Amino acid sequence: MRARAPASTANLGPGFDTLALALQLYVEVEVEPAEKLTVRAEGEGADLEEEAGHLAARVAIDVTGHDRLAITVRSEIPVARGLGSSAALAAAAAAAAGSKDPLGVAARVDGHPENAAASVAGGLVAATMVKGAVRAVRMPLDGGLVFVALVPDRVLATSKARQALPHEVSRSDATFNLGRMALLLAGLADRSLLIREATEDRLHQDYRSPLFPEAPQLLSRLLQAGALATCWSGAGPSVLGICETSDAESVRESAEAAMAEIGVSGRALLLRADLDGLIVNGVPGRLPRSHAPYDILAEGSDSEV
Amino acid sequence: MRARAPASTANLGPGFDTLALALQLYVEVEVEPAEKLTVRAEGEGADLEEEAGHLAARVAIDVTGHDRLAITVRSEIPVARGLGSSAALAAAAAAAAGSKDPLGVAARVDGHPENAAASVAGGLVAATMVKGAVRAVRMPLDGGLVFVALVPDRVLATSKARQALPHEVSRSDATFNLGRMALLLAGLADRSLLIREATEDRLHQDYRSPLFPEAPQLLSRLLQAGALATCWSGAGPSVLGICETSDAESVRESAEAAMAEIGVSGRALLLRADLDGLIVNGVPGRLPRSHAPYDILAEGSDSEV
Repeated sequence: MRARAPASTANLGPGFDTLALALQLYVEVEVEPAEKLTVRAEGEGADLEEEAGHLAARVAIDVTGHDRLAITVRSEIPVARGLGSSAALAAAAAAAAGSKDPLGVAARVDGHPENAAASVAGGLVAATMVKGAVRAVRMPLDGGLVFVALVPDRVLATSKARQALPHEVSRSDATFNLGRMALLLAGLADRSLLIREATEDRLHQDYRSPLFPEAPQLLSRLLQAGALATCWSGAGPSVLGICETSDAESVRESAEAAMAEIGVSGRALLLRADLDGLIVNGVPGRLPRSHAPYDILAEGSDSEV
Repeated sequence: MRARAPASTANLGPGFDTLALALQLYVEVEVEPAEKLTVRAEGEGADLEEEAGHLAARVAIDVTGHDRLAITVRSEIPVARGLGSSAALAAAAAAAAGSKDPLGVAARVDGHPENAAASVAGGLVAATMVKGAVRAVRMPLDGGLVFVALVPDRVLATSKARQALPHEVSRSDATFNLGRMALLLAGLADRSLLIREATEDRLHQDYRSPLFPEAPQLLSRLLQAGALATCWSGAGPSVLGICETSDAESVRESAEAAMAEIGVSGRALLLRADLDGLIVNGVPGRLPRSHAPYDILAEGSDSEV
């Protein structure tokens, strides 16, 4: 079997550990019966073959209960850049290995239900743990928004980015993020309401800036170039500009120039939201689909997590 | 001039200091030119005439710049019960006194932009301060939801309820509320997605329980009676059951019996959401109206706050 899952950008500023959005960059995993375990990796992460292979193999072995598998991973998703590569890989590997609950597997393996939910369901999602299980819902996303991701060549492990965060925050900072997240959800649903302050955050971004000191400058340049709002992508180091479709290519070009000027080598990618989520053997995955603006993607009782 | 504004229930569990919902209980204020200041109060809060009169008079004098005013306040909104009576009164008084920015005035006077925004705009709103000004947006609300408010006879001043809250919270509690608020917004937009865990909160409710020790029991009984989810209303002591229309009257009756059984004297009210907001001289207020699920209600530059 083969399965494809999209990258995702999590947090989106105030929605720390809650919001994620699927992006049109993909990882495809094939899992076939074999005499013994082999893992072949192509594309992004292939130079880190052992890691990518390890994760895909670990998931596939976990799902099938044996290691007589030939696994192929083809990825367009930069690894350890805050684009949800491991959640996408885990979801695709689980599905390709025949799991009935790729979301539960990916959330458990990756530790990020929001990335896993976006990779499995596509679109904009909110996910959190309820009674030890993933609860994920789709939130409305304005089709006129596109995304410019600045992807530095350097990596930043999520675990390290998390160590930079304090265990305690002020109640006013917690409240600040609630207010900003509500403004952000309204603005992502209807881009005419999206203001740059909607992606302001006090729970993670500033604490992580020392790990990537050029980030504030890049965010600022994205705004100057015409992005409606900007944020770190996941735990970084990638940063994201949320843009009107008509402005996005010019934002991308300006931001690419800004990266060179600031001395951050890497890529500036213009990405659309992925609305398909997981595709298994060429057909959409097992989650219920609807065209309702809100949709339940995972219920506690359905999940293994 | 005369103006009417609805009560509001704020926080709704996880949406601390952010979400509020207008309810069909009203305060009406008339402000007319006169030789000297007179204030007459009828209905709820009339026994606290001085306080209600003081607030309405203070707002009207602030707006008009003089005190030659005859002010009449008629209220159905219980005072100091967590139903946004002061924000509603301030909004109605500001509008009746001719203010062009009743939201800004009410938010400044009351200190709660979310209550003020619900009273001015109606419906479900999210509001927060951006650069010192109110920013409020309408969020989608499922028309099939109604609300059972348990309103104890005892009062609980918001200022006292706030003193019960810690200045620091754990990052995981802050994140918990973000996740729950996203689930709640999805569930209020589409009630088929509303689960009881969506109103769970770690920033205020538990800290306030010592001020109203029967609250947890009342919340529990509302759920048992068939409410979809429950929460404190504002800073309490009222508590709220969010219900399917078809279940609401039976939830109200059961909860009323539970109040008597637990020994909390007061009322159990079945309330619908108010969708009109502020009505000035019989016509809707000055805010732009649309039938879009999201709507901008206040922008920084429009507000005096």
